[in-house]
Amino acid sequence: MKIALCQLDVTTDYKTNLLHARAMLREAGERGAQIALLPEMFTMVYSPKRFCTVAEPCEGGEAFEMLSATAASSHMAVIGGSIPEQDRECIYNTSMCFDKSGEYVGKYRKAHLFDVELPGKRPFRESDAIKHGDGYPLYLPQFPLRTGVCICFDIRFPEWQRFLMMQDIDLLAVPAAFSNYTGPRHWELLLRARALDNQCFAAGVSPAHSDFVYGHSMLVAPDGSVVYDCGDEEGVHVLEMDLKLLEEMRQSIPVKKLRRGDLYEVVKKVD
Amino acid sequence: MKIALCQLDVTTDYKTNLLHARAMLREAGERGAQIALLPEMFTMVYSPKRFCTVAEPCEGGEAFEMLSATAASSHMAVIGGSIPEQDRECIYNTSMCFDKSGEYVGKYRKAHLFDVELPGKRPFRESDAIKHGDGYPLYLPQFPLRTGVCICFDIRFPEWQRFLMMQDIDLLAVPAAFSNYTGPRHWELLLRARALDNQCFAAGVSPAHSDFVYGHSMLVAPDGSVVYDCGDEEGVHVLEMDLKLLEEMRQSIPVKKLRRGDLYEVVKKVD
Repeated sequence: MKIALCQLDVTTDYKTNLLHARAMLREAGERGAQIALLPEMFTMVYSPKRFCTVAEPCEGGEAFEMLSATAASSHMAVIGGSIPEQDRECIYNTSMCFDKSGEYVGKYRKAHLFDVELPGKRPFRESDAIKHGDGYPLYLPQFPLRTGVCICFDIRFPEWQRFLMMQDIDLLAVPAAFSNYTGPRHWELLLRARALDNQCFAAGVSPAHSDFVYGHSMLVAPDGSVVYDCGDEEGVHVLEMDLKLLEEMRQSIPVKKLRRGDLYEVVKKVD
Repeated sequence: MKIALCQLDVTTDYKTNLLHARAMLREAGERGAQIALLPEMFTMVYSPKRFCTVAEPCEGGEAFEMLSATAASSHMAVIGGSIPEQDRECIYNTSMCFDKSGEYVGKYRKAHLFDVELPGKRPFRESDAIKHGDGYPLYLPQFPLRTGVCICFDIRFPEWQRFLMMQDIDLLAVPAAFSNYTGPRHWELLLRARALDNQCFAAGVSPAHSDFVYGHSMLVAPDGSVVYDCGDEEGVHVLEMDLKLLEEMRQSIPVKKLRRGDLYEVVKKVD
């Protein structure tokens, strides 16, 4: 199973970003990827002020149409990073997903927003511009493999990925844009931890390194080891996921069976 | 706040281990530690067959008396690693804790048992010799700092540490004995992940490195960075916990506040 991490150099120009994303997805398809990921907010550099200038609806929007058409023409499943989604008065940070026939299979709105005060930086509140989603992580049962989707800051909350593990995911897909502060400190650790906790592959895709964003898109194996780190530069990285590692890990240390489900449960409080 | 990680070279001789543990605790106290940890199963090398030969009750047992007396004479809180605890027909993997006056403040019975089939090894079933605890992780509100206790394999289950985070722990104490297979692969990753997830210090204490055990007792800061790795050899390591790191981390990335407690909860299924 080949997966493409498309580490796009996201700019301030919407059209450029869209064309660029399309070119990278096409390249991924040509190089044999069966599933491809784009980064968080791939249509506009991560800037709450700029999001309102390019926010668009999901279904029928320009990004939606590009992603659907490219998935279909490349015969490749696509996790469309995320975009600023306009829905009535609100903007969400939303990932749209398409199967290899270009069919829209679902979206996910980021639920945990990045409201922080990092040392030596001004406070940053994603929630000033973005409304949080109120749904649960997206589960795609055949995509072509069982895939769960969450976005960036969501990965700090192990309950969120636990919902997906209980649905038996093989791949955790995480469009993201960790900062140059949190990235070097936490990005690899969190991806590796979630892969190991839940015994799945974890693919985190970031924009290329910039003044604000860390880069280092990464594929992690179900044993928590790093398969590949894409570094700083823009690029399409087509990587092999050795699916037998999933079964090996789950047989050797059967955490799902050894969980004390008689003692605890992560429950959804909203239907 | 000074914490001592007592990386004991556990042998097959019960008396030797007990005396040795006492000497290490005394050394920790003399060097100014306010809290000290021993490794998992510090009274006997990790061997299900041998556990029954040295299993003893908690209250009134020889290990209990030694730990209580040493805590009192050293004016130091003690997390007594764990011992094979005999309770009627059953043996548990149990940690006993004492405050600096030697008062018994609680015990914890390991709830997740190490039943695995590691590549190239014979299947290993801790549950053949040990009965799992049916309680929740031990929470010690003033010990001298808010401390949570779980044991070894428990650390693979993020729900378990989440209970403690919701009680506001500052220190996660993990007596453990990771193997030479799982140790190099997962020990540091899991300790760092739980510290970062829950924004607390994590202290994992193992026996010294041997043919079976990895060693590498470790203190991790609330940002997931390793403060100190004790390596392979036996030794008492007295380390400073800079408690202001707790507040800094919680203010800069307030995960407890940003958790979506309106959407999910880790619930206890047993009272």
